Amino acid sequence: MMKQSITSLFGIQYPIVQAGMAGGPATPELAAAVSNAGGLGTLGAGYMTPADLEAAIHTMKELTNKPCAVNLFLPEVFMEDSVRTEKMRKRLAPFRSSLGMEQASAESGYQSIFQDQLQTVLDAQVSIVSFTFNSPSTELVGQLKEQGITIMATATSVEEARQLEAEGVDVISAQGSEAGGHRGTFIGEAEDALIGSMTLVPLLTDAVSVPVIAAGGIMDGRGIAAAMALGASGVQLGTAFLASAESGAHPLHKDAIFQAKETDLKLTKAFSGKMARGINNDFMEQMAGEENLPPYPIQNALTSDIRKQAAIQGKSEWMSLWAGQGAPMATRLSAHEIMENLVKDYNQVISRMPPF
Amino acid sequence: MMKQSITSLFGIQYPIVQAGMAGGPATPELAAAVSNAGGLGTLGAGYMTPADLEAAIHTMKELTNKPCAVNLFLPEVFMEDSVRTEKMRKRLAPFRSSLGMEQASAESGYQSIFQDQLQTVLDAQVSIVSFTFNSPSTELVGQLKEQGITIMATATSVEEARQLEAEGVDVISAQGSEAGGHRGTFIGEAEDALIGSMTLVPLLTDAVSVPVIAAGGIMDGRGIAAAMALGASGVQLGTAFLASAESGAHPLHKDAIFQAKETDLKLTKAFSGKMARGINNDFMEQMAGEENLPPYPIQNALTSDIRKQAAIQGKSEWMSLWAGQGAPMATRLSAHEIMENLVKDYNQVISRMPPF
Repeated sequence: MMKQSITSLFGIQYPIVQAGMAGGPATPELAAAVSNAGGLGTLGAGYMTPADLEAAIHTMKELTNKPCAVNLFLPEVFMEDSVRTEKMRKRLAPFRSSLGMEQASAESGYQSIFQDQLQTVLDAQVSIVSFTFNSPSTELVGQLKEQGITIMATATSVEEARQLEAEGVDVISAQGSEAGGHRGTFIGEAEDALIGSMTLVPLLTDAVSVPVIAAGGIMDGRGIAAAMALGASGVQLGTAFLASAESGAHPLHKDAIFQAKETDLKLTKAFSGKMARGINNDFMEQMAGEENLPPYPIQNALTSDIRKQAAIQGKSEWMSLWAGQGAPMATRLSAHEIMENLVKDYNQVISRMPPF
Repeated sequence: MMKQSITSLFGIQYPIVQAGMAGGPATPELAAAVSNAGGLGTLGAGYMTPADLEAAIHTMKELTNKPCAVNLFLPEVFMEDSVRTEKMRKRLAPFRSSLGMEQASAESGYQSIFQDQLQTVLDAQVSIVSFTFNSPSTELVGQLKEQGITIMATATSVEEARQLEAEGVDVISAQGSEAGGHRGTFIGEAEDALIGSMTLVPLLTDAVSVPVIAAGGIMDGRGIAAAMALGASGVQLGTAFLASAESGAHPLHKDAIFQAKETDLKLTKAFSGKMARGINNDFMEQMAGEENLPPYPIQNALTSDIRKQAAIQGKSEWMSLWAGQGAPMATRLSAHEIMENLVKDYNQVISRMPPF
């Protein structure tokens, strides 16, 4: 079936989206550089306070007048269990001690900032918003459409893609199992929705009539050509930009990417309570056996300042080193050079495809 | 880097290999039909007795004069633990009782038939042999090369691919995480080598100079085009042929494929002690918590007659319903029609690839 072109939908030159990697990597500088090079840059705003988000959008808009997206984490229902949370606080105490941190108080917890982030995005007149971790409500979709905002959201299965389309999402990002960072699964268990891009992309392309963007494992022109062959209307790359000059990833995080073998990119719930893919390290191994991990966002709040302190002290073994399985193919080039290579290599790859 | 063409290496028309699905599906009829249609058919001989193998090769050669391959399981080192084995025998007793089977004796166990299978293949003058579960020894490679046999073997990581190349393997099959049936991992843990085809294919293509064939998640012309874009010299499809007219898969196995959602294709060690992907069912769920599973091939031997009896009694919940994540895209067409569609669709897909 003929799908709407995402270049015309987003107003961009190339159907290449830079993933909104939250927690540092997807800076305003990275997003603007990708957009200036003809792709769609995305601000990774998942964890940003409204004030930081406002400043970041301002910076991004100063650096480019091209379209950019903002990525937000949709709130989800979760069960609090104060006994379990308290056990985890105790379990994490030795990490804090070892880093010279004060012990966490029972009050320090999680508070959703989504509504304030959303208001900031609406006030700043952002034209494209992408969501993950859930399906936007009919009300939220209506609110965004009223302002003419194009909505993108992440699916990890056919059922999720159909729900997103039914809610009115304009573009679906198909997150293959190769992808780095958090899984976007919101129906069923993340363990069951680890579908490789080779299968997920054609399945989702067939299942919905809106454009599908392939995300997961795409690192170069070969991957883009593969995704387009599978029926994708475009691609989303995170890890390919993670070690770029403009990425805000911690220098140790960037270094780790170049040490990692593809078998080191493991799935873990240890850092946040939600399954995510990153470079295996001591924290993941120490926490591997934990049976009573609080769910996201509780566990994320419990480990957040441990990871921040570990980053300050240069202890990458206790940082969350999110990255996709394609990490061994990452480069330290500038976002502009990466974009140039992607386009050039893609055109070369498709010009060489041998007919049978 | 320029790689040898697998069509000239194998003496076939299209770089499409049918996977040697052991235990029934990859019959002489299926292999011959694929080869007659211009691909490379493969006899799934992993579990065949030498006598059955000899007969199957004979049938295959009567049905086609085109090149065909035979797939064998390489022996591997495993630890026997008679206490654990006995515990598992007791754990499996209720399944046997429920099926009206006699209880297994402590003597019924596993005996390798590889050397006899190998001799059968050598005697029958098969021209192409493919291996999985291990790296062939230098001695074995020499023995096969002396007879002019082309050797293919499965890798699930860069390290494995490099070892296979160093041993003298001619073609490497890159088994992406999407693939159905047993994982071929032979270095490290299978859990760590679940790399999606989107990433595994370019990584392996770059890592070795021999041709790499993409296996895992490829179901149609789109998947073939994707694999070729990623740098593969060809493709290997199993699930795409699993429900074909010529497949020897049990009718209930074929039916289950058309009921399965992509999220139902789960990894399990329950049936064989080795990680494999199949359609989730009661046996997998009942055994999911088992901590002391004997390794392959012990567990395989322990459950083998239970699965056979379940198949006879039409109880698919206790059969091993191996299939890849692409199962929802499978068809019941003949192998000849599937091959025709693959070639036609591939050519259409590559003719439509839009330059950026």
